[in-house]
Amino acid sequence: MDILLIGIGTGNPEHLTLQAIRAMKRADLVLIPRKGDDKADLSALRRAICLEVLGDDSRIAEFDMPVRDPANPSYLSRVSDWHDAIAARWADAIATRPQAEVVALLVWGDPALYDSSLRIAARLAGEVTVSVVPGLMSPQVLTAAHGIALNDIGAPFLVTTGRRLRNEGWPGGVDTLVVMLDGDCSFAALDPEGVTIWWGAYVGMENQILDHGPLAEAGPRIRERREAARAAHGWIMDIYLLRRSR
Amino acid sequence: MDILLIGIGTGNPEHLTLQAIRAMKRADLVLIPRKGDDKADLSALRRAICLEVLGDDSRIAEFDMPVRDPANPSYLSRVSDWHDAIAARWADAIATRPQAEVVALLVWGDPALYDSSLRIAARLAGEVTVSVVPGLMSPQVLTAAHGIALNDIGAPFLVTTGRRLRNEGWPGGVDTLVVMLDGDCSFAALDPEGVTIWWGAYVGMENQILDHGPLAEAGPRIRERREAARAAHGWIMDIYLLRRSR
Repeated sequence: MDILLIGIGTGNPEHLTLQAIRAMKRADLVLIPRKGDDKADLSALRRAICLEVLGDDSRIAEFDMPVRDPANPSYLSRVSDWHDAIAARWADAIATRPQAEVVALLVWGDPALYDSSLRIAARLAGEVTVSVVPGLMSPQVLTAAHGIALNDIGAPFLVTTGRRLRNEGWPGGVDTLVVMLDGDCSFAALDPEGVTIWWGAYVGMENQILDHGPLAEAGPRIRERREAARAAHGWIMDIYLLRRSR
Repeated sequence: MDILLIGIGTGNPEHLTLQAIRAMKRADLVLIPRKGDDKADLSALRRAICLEVLGDDSRIAEFDMPVRDPANPSYLSRVSDWHDAIAARWADAIATRPQAEVVALLVWGDPALYDSSLRIAARLAGEVTVSVVPGLMSPQVLTAAHGIALNDIGAPFLVTTGRRLRNEGWPGGVDTLVVMLDGDCSFAALDPEGVTIWWGAYVGMENQILDHGPLAEAGPRIRERREAARAAHGWIMDIYLLRRSR
């Protein structure tokens, strides 16, 4: 069986590459995760993209995502158990279509970036070949929307998580950070002196929100806008870039 | 005047997004840089993509890229002078089409990543609006080709240059490095213990070459393959990811 992990970008149907469209058309079966009501618009968007590319929904199989066990105190073991559970759901959904030889998953952003699909696919039993089709990912959709570069000239940048930033502070040796998976506005704990933030929520989607400025003044404003947007939509996905001037 | 900086991916015409195709069709004028014979296939590929999307070459204007002044000892000032010179070439090429209101540049990879187009566009005189269309970039094309993730679970990664790696060694606090713009196989100077390398040249293109393995054994092999490929093609563009196990 061929598993195709297809990056679809961040919610704008025009983020699809020609390669992603061709891969979707190759698939006999497209698995779409249902994550519950609060993220309903994401499965709806995956479904809309399928209908647009494939013409009808005959190749779609939906499955319910399991939830992580909050009682497990170890972060890595909690994630590993969760990946096992998702792989079992994939296998169940695939088993409903015994004829399917090419199975696709539409991955938000890019399968390489803070995504579990590669690790889940590696858990499937039997003869499985996994192929990846890259897709636009939120850091580049953020920088495109703001019209800024990821890096200063010849300089490095670090892509990290809100959890890391909160626990470890600004890492040494790098003046540009891209922060993902931050549910707690971890930038608020930083010394804002000389730091600029470029923030975006729902980047690439119709309801995209952007803000930027010196962290000291933009930070509190972004916290408020984030809270209001989450209340209005019922969920939020956001990302930001921090740059420190020496 | 509107300037559209359009990321086109890394050489596979199927890397184009639907958004990039629409942006190209909006343009009255598409500027294509000529970099000299050794990179001739890149301008040829930009031209082929234009012909495919636009149907003919009536909107294309080519211009010769200036060269950096090797006599200037300051890296940053050498780069800045070079950007000034490129901006002047853009302006000259645009002046040949006084009717053009929407001018596009097809940017290899993504305009946000180790690319000068944003800084050059900011040098243009007059009323200029710059928009960016993101494109697949080499780190994600590399990881897709190898079927690996950029990050370990919940862990950060650093995107940096060969120059930095050579001068500063492995940076602290991070176990995954993506190294770009490395003409000198800077990985060879690292302690290879516990380090794995995933390397790719011409990623996404027809002549893509991949290699990976423990750095101690794969490193020397990659140096040889890189040298042979550069001799065969007359130029090379490559990238690699290094991951250190704790």
